Amino acid sequence: MAVYTDVTDDALAAFLTDYDIGTMVAFRGIAEGVENSNFSLRTTAGDFILTLYEKRVDPNDLPWFLGLMEHLAQRGVVCPQPVRGRDGSALRHLAGKHAAITTFLPGVWPRRVRQSHCGPVGIALARLHLAGADYAPTRANALGPSNWMPLLDKCRIQADALEAGLVQELDAALAAILASWPAGLPTGHIHADMFPDNVFFLDDTLSGLIDFYFASTDLLAYDVAICLNAWCFEADFSFNVTKSRALLAGYQSVRALSRQEQAALPVLCQGAAIRFLLTRLYDWLNTPAGALVTRKNPLEYLRRLRFHNSATDGRAYGL
Amino acid sequence: MAVYTDVTDDALAAFLTDYDIGTMVAFRGIAEGVENSNFSLRTTAGDFILTLYEKRVDPNDLPWFLGLMEHLAQRGVVCPQPVRGRDGSALRHLAGKHAAITTFLPGVWPRRVRQSHCGPVGIALARLHLAGADYAPTRANALGPSNWMPLLDKCRIQADALEAGLVQELDAALAAILASWPAGLPTGHIHADMFPDNVFFLDDTLSGLIDFYFASTDLLAYDVAICLNAWCFEADFSFNVTKSRALLAGYQSVRALSRQEQAALPVLCQGAAIRFLLTRLYDWLNTPAGALVTRKNPLEYLRRLRFHNSATDGRAYGL
Repeated sequence: MAVYTDVTDDALAAFLTDYDIGTMVAFRGIAEGVENSNFSLRTTAGDFILTLYEKRVDPNDLPWFLGLMEHLAQRGVVCPQPVRGRDGSALRHLAGKHAAITTFLPGVWPRRVRQSHCGPVGIALARLHLAGADYAPTRANALGPSNWMPLLDKCRIQADALEAGLVQELDAALAAILASWPAGLPTGHIHADMFPDNVFFLDDTLSGLIDFYFASTDLLAYDVAICLNAWCFEADFSFNVTKSRALLAGYQSVRALSRQEQAALPVLCQGAAIRFLLTRLYDWLNTPAGALVTRKNPLEYLRRLRFHNSATDGRAYGL
Repeated sequence: MAVYTDVTDDALAAFLTDYDIGTMVAFRGIAEGVENSNFSLRTTAGDFILTLYEKRVDPNDLPWFLGLMEHLAQRGVVCPQPVRGRDGSALRHLAGKHAAITTFLPGVWPRRVRQSHCGPVGIALARLHLAGADYAPTRANALGPSNWMPLLDKCRIQADALEAGLVQELDAALAAILASWPAGLPTGHIHADMFPDNVFFLDDTLSGLIDFYFASTDLLAYDVAICLNAWCFEADFSFNVTKSRALLAGYQSVRALSRQEQAALPVLCQGAAIRFLLTRLYDWLNTPAGALVTRKNPLEYLRRLRFHNSATDGRAYGL
C-alpha cells in the first residue's frame, strides 16, 4: 500500500490548470500499488488516476511507458490513457516528482483467480503483443536474464537466513536457466507484470490492464511464462493445469506460439519464477523496518520454480 | 494510510447482494485513515465508501455512530450517510469485520489551512452541535478528561525517552487542567476529531464532514477547543489568532458561546492539546516497527499545550 508523496490541494489545483480537465471534485490516495504513489482524482470532467513516479522508476523511461500506453489504447487495448496537458505533454512535475494523469478504468481485480479468468487473460496478453508490434521505440528489460545473477549476488550473504541452502539452490537453478535460455524467439513489447492485481474484470469480462511500468522489449513467450506463474498456481503452490490450458488457449486464439516457443516454456517459466523470487528476495532483505510496504514472501516463487524444474516440455502446461 | 483487511471481489459481490445499490464497477483501498479500513466503491448505482471497522472501534458503539450520521444528514449536515441493506440494517459483516457502506462525499481536504477555511469550519461545527441536539442516545467520550491520567500512566515509564522532563511537565499540566475543568457547560454530541483531513472543501466552500468515529457526548465548547488546536496553529506552532477569530466568529454566527464557555476556552484548549498529545504519545511508544501507519509526533501538541498555558481568557483566541 503506498502513498509515498502527498500532494497539497493547492498544488493539485495549480497542477490542474495545466490541463483541460476541469477542476478537482475529489482526491484520495490509493492504497494499492508498491512502486509509485497513486491517487483517485475526480474533476468536473470525470475520473482520473494521478501517479507520482517514485525512485524505483527511471525518469528516462517514462516517455516510453506513456507512449506505449497511448499506442496500445489507440489499438483497442483497454489500458490507462495518458492525459496530455494544454501544451501537449503528458509527463509533468508535481510535488517534486515526475507525474502523469491517466484515464480511470472501471473494473475490480480478482483476488481469487478462477479458471474463467484465465482465457481472457491469455487473449488480452496476445492482443497486447500484437498491438505493440508497430510501437517503434524499444526498452531493454531491466529485470531480464542478464540482471538475475547481479541481483542474486546482492542477496548472497543474507539469503540463507531466509531458508538454509537457498543460495546454493538458486545458483544451480540460475546457471541451468541461463545456459538454456532460448535465442531467436519472437520479441516485442511485453507487459512483464501481468499479475491479477493489474487486470480488471467487470461481470466476469476483462475490462482493462493497468501498471505498465515494468513493460519492456523482450521475448513475447516470456510474458506468457510470467502469466503462467501469476495466474495458474493455487494457494498451496500446486499448479492448476486447467487454468494454464485456458490461458494458453486464450493466448493462441489470437497469436499462435511457435514450436520453439512452446518447447521453451519450461525454461521461460523457470526464468519468470526466479525473476520474481530474486526481486522479492532483494526487497525482503532490504526493506527497512517501519516501511509502508508489506513485504512479499520470496519463497512462494521457490515453490513455483521447483514445479517448473519438473516440467520437461509444453505438455506440463497443458499444451 | 491504512487498509488492514482486504476484501476479495467474490466476497464483495456477495455482500452487495444484500443491498439495493447495483453491482460493483470499481473498488480500491483508500490510503488515508488510521483507525479503520476504507475502500472507494463504485457500483452501477453510484459511488460509495466501504468501511471495515478495525479493532480500535468498539462494535457496541457502531449503531450509535451510524445513527448519529444518519440523524445529522437528515438535518442538513453534509456527512456520509449510512446505506441500509435490504433488511433495513446499515451495520453488517464482511471479511470477518463489522462493515458499513456510506455515501460518497465530493471534496478535498485542505493540506494547508487558510484563514478562509476557518470561518466555514466554525459554522459547520456549530450546525453539527445544533443538529445533534435531538439525537437522544448518548455515548460517553472514551478519550475525555477521566481517561487522560490512565493514558499518561501507560506512557509514564517510557515517555521521558522522547523528551527529557516530559512526564513531569505533563503531570503538572494535567493536574492543573483536571483541577479547573469546567462543570455545568452545555453538553451535546461532539465530532471530537474535526481535523483538516476530516473536512472536505470544494472551490473554497465546505462540502462535507467525515469520520465520526470519535464522536461522543461531551462539552460542546470542548469541540470548539479541539478545532482551535487543529486549525489555528501554523507549521512553526505559532498560534494564528486571525484564524482563531474567524473560526470562533463562524461558530458564534450559528451558536453563541456563553460567557462561561468563553472563559473556559483556555483550559478546554489545554485539555484538547493534552488529549491528542497523550494518544499520539501512546501510539508513538506502542506502534510496532513495520506497522503500516505513520506515527505522528506527540511533541507537536506539547508546543500547543504551552501556548494554551499562556492564555488567561478568551481574548487569547480573538474573542
